[in-house]
Amino acid sequence: MAATALVAIDWGTSSARAFCLDADGSVVAQRDTPLGVRHVRDGRFDAALAKLIDGMPLGLAPRIACGMVGSRQGWIEAPYVSCPASLVALADHLVQLPFDVLAIVPGVETRDVSGTPDVMRGEETQLLGAVAIDAPSVLAVLPGTHSKWARVEHGRIVDFTTFMTGELYAVLLDHSMLGRLAGHEPGRFSRDAFSRGVARGLREGELSHDLFGARTLSLAGQLQSDEVADWLSGLLIGREIRGARAWAIRAGADPSVVHVIGRDTLAERYALALGDAAILSQRITDHAAARGLWRIAQRAGLLNA
Amino acid sequence: MAATALVAIDWGTSSARAFCLDADGSVVAQRDTPLGVRHVRDGRFDAALAKLIDGMPLGLAPRIACGMVGSRQGWIEAPYVSCPASLVALADHLVQLPFDVLAIVPGVETRDVSGTPDVMRGEETQLLGAVAIDAPSVLAVLPGTHSKWARVEHGRIVDFTTFMTGELYAVLLDHSMLGRLAGHEPGRFSRDAFSRGVARGLREGELSHDLFGARTLSLAGQLQSDEVADWLSGLLIGREIRGARAWAIRAGADPSVVHVIGRDTLAERYALALGDAAILSQRITDHAAARGLWRIAQRAGLLNA
Repeated sequence: MAATALVAIDWGTSSARAFCLDADGSVVAQRDTPLGVRHVRDGRFDAALAKLIDGMPLGLAPRIACGMVGSRQGWIEAPYVSCPASLVALADHLVQLPFDVLAIVPGVETRDVSGTPDVMRGEETQLLGAVAIDAPSVLAVLPGTHSKWARVEHGRIVDFTTFMTGELYAVLLDHSMLGRLAGHEPGRFSRDAFSRGVARGLREGELSHDLFGARTLSLAGQLQSDEVADWLSGLLIGREIRGARAWAIRAGADPSVVHVIGRDTLAERYALALGDAAILSQRITDHAAARGLWRIAQRAGLLNA
Repeated sequence: MAATALVAIDWGTSSARAFCLDADGSVVAQRDTPLGVRHVRDGRFDAALAKLIDGMPLGLAPRIACGMVGSRQGWIEAPYVSCPASLVALADHLVQLPFDVLAIVPGVETRDVSGTPDVMRGEETQLLGAVAIDAPSVLAVLPGTHSKWARVEHGRIVDFTTFMTGELYAVLLDHSMLGRLAGHEPGRFSRDAFSRGVARGLREGELSHDLFGARTLSLAGQLQSDEVADWLSGLLIGREIRGARAWAIRAGADPSVVHVIGRDTLAERYALALGDAAILSQRITDHAAARGLWRIAQRAGLLNA
């Protein structure tokens, strides 16, 4: 087995994933744990890190992490870097814990058209790992509880915008009228109901009106209870795509191809919805965070240590 | 005390209100109860009605009700009348229970631009009670869990549209990240945070993006925890006003004056938000449902019985 040149950790709110990478950036060992920031007790991040990587082939390799571990609720706060944020800027603003225990990647911030701040922490690393550094212009989405859309140019995150789509889906289904309509049968995915939701989401309209459609379509017999969840998913993702497309066009970007970064069924749904919107999607399913951490570490000179 | 000419019941999901009206339509007795449709056990609506009006000065007056009592979950289903829905149409489609125990007002249905049905049940009666029958053109809002905006012309509900604003506010505050940001101090109303939310709501934008602003504004120190709830309320109401204004303009209606039907603090918030949007609001705070039921009963010839 090749020697470990970097220990890279994607350390989020609910889980933490550690990777041992060799000098070429290939993954030689990997571990997934539920040791997310939320589950670390009494601020004992040092103990959590020891547990997280214990028994992995660490050698004397340097350690680097991205994600909520660098937030106010994490180990140490790594201040945000403003857009446009390059690999170099992220590397220059790594925050080192004492005795080089761990280097932490900063988050990235921007402002939307209304001047309201927007932030990411962890996604900047995935983006710079997923997108080719020499690509002149890429539009990418990271589906999730708080989906991020970003424009990446020549290895710089030029701008991004967040949609609370995943969280809206969960709270509406668990706690609103839509959940009562949906019942509690999990059921299999209804491509048809999903696409009807997407079509509605892609149209102009106020979300708080369109959501009420779940009730009236059910009343009219046009939406079955086991279709409500997929219709809602389609509506919310479709509306997100509509908003993100307008956001990209406003910046002069080409919205006809989108990189979808993620391996789960949610990323598959985004690819389907993009197809419904006549947008080409390019799936990126390998270790984007690990690759991003390797690139940042390389740029920071950590690998030569 | 004047003799009762009509017993009028506003019978909704969570509560029921009974009114005794004299021949002029004035309220001579009133009772509020929690005997809403949801709380009627085993379909015993007859027992619920007896309890609801027991001891009121009923005489031999006819009885009429509007609201969810006429839904599939109510006493008997009163099918929807399509827009444009006049007083005459509602009167013509009253559903009588056997032995004239109770006449029930039908709901009203329409379709939005996407062809999706929209429905109301109870609000049609409030609208036709609140708006002068000879008014040529009125734009009205009934704030609530599911707010309704309607265009009323010469005593006809020409069209309407629903926004799930109140329910969204409740589920987001009780179950999402926004509730965690808000903490659990009730606090007094922050006019400033509300207006900042309204301003953002009135701007173009995707709700699922704008909601995330609660987090980033909090992170940036621009929104205090005791302001989050009012900011959210403003954002949702502002976005509803934006959508409703566009809806009214699309139909060629004048959106510069809006009748706000309701007595609670929510109706006050709508009046404030309309002011922020440079729209004049006219508050209607008296017994709109009772007056509407009286007008429908009169048109149906019930009062002459």
